[in-house]
Amino acid sequence: MNYKPGDTASFSKTIRDEDIQAFADLSGDSNPVHLDDDFARTTRFGRRIAHGMLGASLISTVLGTKLPGQGAIYLSQTIQFLAPVFPGDTVTAKVTVTKIKEGKPILTLETICENQRGETLIRGEAVVLVE
Amino acid sequence: MNYKPGDTASFSKTIRDEDIQAFADLSGDSNPVHLDDDFARTTRFGRRIAHGMLGASLISTVLGTKLPGQGAIYLSQTIQFLAPVFPGDTVTAKVTVTKIKEGKPILTLETICENQRGETLIRGEAVVLVE
Repeated sequence: MNYKPGDTASFSKTIRDEDIQAFADLSGDSNPVHLDDDFARTTRFGRRIAHGMLGASLISTVLGTKLPGQGAIYLSQTIQFLAPVFPGDTVTAKVTVTKIKEGKPILTLETICENQRGETLIRGEAVVLVE
Repeated sequence: MNYKPGDTASFSKTIRDEDIQAFADLSGDSNPVHLDDDFARTTRFGRRIAHGMLGASLISTVLGTKLPGQGAIYLSQTIQFLAPVFPGDTVTAKVTVTKIKEGKPILTLETICENQRGETLIRGEAVVLVE
């Protein structure tokens, strides 16, 4: 393994209405805060938000395609949802290696999602086995 | 809030090839272990597996549609990926209230995903604010 603490990679995606609808269809999560403008206006957010797990899924994308990429096996993930993703926001998921297990191909990574204004949306930690 | 420890709800979905492809398209996670039979045969799993976060997303579905349902605001989630989801597996996400914050509408829930053979795929904990 040629990884070292501080190695980093990221992936960005603009979350559009059709992504939110696709995630609702795929997961079955039809909570109206994601899908119904009228309902969403009555919530603390004042408008529709994306599913938290849709944003968090972009972390898996970085791990599965960039760092460590092919051969990554997801062992665990913690997620704190700090701020919502609104339709049209661009979410950047960034992972940074923080620890490499002694003698085992297991990486711990800090995982963060930010929006286009640099606000932290999601913070957490992933542990990944590299085959 | 009329919740009490032990309250439980679940949601099941059979994960088909088209769901895996849809999740890959939506998230951008095109890791070949999910999409390429030939590559997947060379891995420890011996065949294609679903994205871990696709299974985990079913937890969000239970929280967002059943318990607590509408008005749920996701604060955090921990996920341990214990076993893979293969195409055609039926995943049942089950959440159980374990704790209710004194004087605040914040629930802690145990979150588990099982397959049709009763094997535990995902284990973790969610914290949800109820508006």
